[in-house]
Amino acid sequence: MRYKGKDYRTVWFENGTVSMIDQNKIPCFEIYRCKSYLDTCEAIKDMTVRGAGAIGAAAGFAMAQVFLEKQKIDEDFLREARNKIKSTRPTARNLGYAVDRVYDRAIRATDPRKKAVEEAQKIADEDVEASRKIGEYGSGLIKDKYKIMTHCNAGALAFVDNGTALSPIYSVFRNGMNVFVYVSKTGPRGQGAKLTSFELINNNIEFVIFEDSASAHFLKEGGVDLIIVGADRIARNGDVANKIGTLDKAILAKEFNVPFYVAAPTSTIDTYCNSGEEIKVEYRSEDEVLYQTGHTKDGRLERILVATPGSRAINPAFDITDAKYITDIITEYGIIKADKNGERMKKELSKLLNKIKGKNTH
Amino acid sequence: MRYKGKDYRTVWFENGTVSMIDQNKIPCFEIYRCKSYLDTCEAIKDMTVRGAGAIGAAAGFAMAQVFLEKQKIDEDFLREARNKIKSTRPTARNLGYAVDRVYDRAIRATDPRKKAVEEAQKIADEDVEASRKIGEYGSGLIKDKYKIMTHCNAGALAFVDNGTALSPIYSVFRNGMNVFVYVSKTGPRGQGAKLTSFELINNNIEFVIFEDSASAHFLKEGGVDLIIVGADRIARNGDVANKIGTLDKAILAKEFNVPFYVAAPTSTIDTYCNSGEEIKVEYRSEDEVLYQTGHTKDGRLERILVATPGSRAINPAFDITDAKYITDIITEYGIIKADKNGERMKKELSKLLNKIKGKNTH
Repeated sequence: MRYKGKDYRTVWFENGTVSMIDQNKIPCFEIYRCKSYLDTCEAIKDMTVRGAGAIGAAAGFAMAQVFLEKQKIDEDFLREARNKIKSTRPTARNLGYAVDRVYDRAIRATDPRKKAVEEAQKIADEDVEASRKIGEYGSGLIKDKYKIMTHCNAGALAFVDNGTALSPIYSVFRNGMNVFVYVSKTGPRGQGAKLTSFELINNNIEFVIFEDSASAHFLKEGGVDLIIVGADRIARNGDVANKIGTLDKAILAKEFNVPFYVAAPTSTIDTYCNSGEEIKVEYRSEDEVLYQTGHTKDGRLERILVATPGSRAINPAFDITDAKYITDIITEYGIIKADKNGERMKKELSKLLNKIKGKNTH
Repeated sequence: MRYKGKDYRTVWFENGTVSMIDQNKIPCFEIYRCKSYLDTCEAIKDMTVRGAGAIGAAAGFAMAQVFLEKQKIDEDFLREARNKIKSTRPTARNLGYAVDRVYDRAIRATDPRKKAVEEAQKIADEDVEASRKIGEYGSGLIKDKYKIMTHCNAGALAFVDNGTALSPIYSVFRNGMNVFVYVSKTGPRGQGAKLTSFELINNNIEFVIFEDSASAHFLKEGGVDLIIVGADRIARNGDVANKIGTLDKAILAKEFNVPFYVAAPTSTIDTYCNSGEEIKVEYRSEDEVLYQTGHTKDGRLERILVATPGSRAINPAFDITDAKYITDIITEYGIIKADKNGERMKKELSKLLNKIKGKNTH
């Protein structure tokens, strides 16, 4: 993440402390530091750190903090802490993946404390590299002067660096192409308007923010060449859990023959999940819908009620996009080609999963 | 519009003054008074009065104010004023209809000033009656315990009274049925969260507010029995211009086999407009997307920036929903049945238009 000419990771680990760009403060740029694993859990829960990869890295570091917090291995404490971290955000695939991986490798090591930190760091580094590769593969889908629609924030801020949905855009932009980005505001928390816009402005990439409800209008108008979004969890059959509003855009894209791409590292693929039906969707506080947070004219951060007092709201944070609406999935190992009935995507996904499995066992 | 046990019209005329419920102030209840036609134009433009029927009535009253403002007929002044009123909100069909009707009838009358006021009053009264009838016809589509999704505000506040999309809900509720309403927040101005919720709370009807982007999620989940929305303009072929986000919901409803109804008085049908392609969509200020207005904890009305400073936004206020996505149109003369390719709706719409034409010439 480039800010004022300096490169930052979204989340990093130093001397037992997890540091992160405070995403609730953006467009202000502030670093938030978590000294204990419970601090890190809180930061994941209240979305100081958010986005699939960044949550994964933060959760991995949190698990490392757990190992560091007691001098001796205390299995009850470890298990309890592991469950606590996992319960902070139920939908994100990378979270459980990172926690389990740090736990499993560290617990069997001769020096579990050292191994836990190493493994968490490795997860963060792999995330950076996977994002970069997704950018390379995805860039082949983009032509000069393309208009690209995206939803939520699957940029550098959502990962340790580079991002997924935005990574191909950064890649072609670095290669001198002109692209224009339609940024969906992304209710209720406005990650498009607040985070994606922040990244694009700091990288000098042209964009415009639009209301989530105007998606069909712009797709029908014919001005959008393709849509790229991220993913929080991908089932074996190619169904994708991602920010609420992803399913809307995928169906609308199909209606107007606009290619719809999902960009995600393979760590997002949940090999134990057969289809989207098995994914539990997280419902968040109704206050996120009823209130909005932003800056007043004189720079104060203010929270305002944007509904009739006494109203109730319902706030699913994610939706499940069926594989049949998805053109292709862009991973760090290449692009999984889709076909009409989703059978081909299923096969290619399996092939990819076997490839990863094979890699992991060597 | 029922407020604290008292019934109000949304807009009314008394001694040359146009009075209206100030819709920018809701959930606070305040009456705004326009002493001149230019005041009324301003109130339409800044959405102190909004919603198809309410705009129409206000515009009719504004045209009557024009006639009252000069002692003698001044054709240049009349024409200029007429164009000024018409240009306040380009998409609303009822606006042009009301202005032309008051102008045409008054200009040929022996006492144009008296006739202008009478005709404008008649338009407002017809609006109330048409809304009531739409409620009656629409109520036949609703069963006890139905869950109904709506978008924006096409309730009493959008018309002189009763409303269109909400009128069938009020009708069945008065008849003792239990219904539950899914209220789409309706970005960028939040007419669902601010106005529809205000009406439903004051009528003790159960509802919940949801983000516009969660439409597909709830439709896929299977908890929604039907969708009803209003219309700002209907073309001869059944294409409908309505609040941005209507097209999204119509397409998604079709995907998940949920009936999608449009409720509108026949004054919304533009007989000169062959299809939605001919309808000019109004783009409003980007500030509506970049800023949000609401109340702070201590009750102050505050405007906050909800995007990264320096971001640009694009803000189409309406979209065009093709007739093929619409199940039926509910009018004050009955329900126009749709079929798969839209041919039947086209025929029935023609029949209805001829019926109105016949009525108007007698």
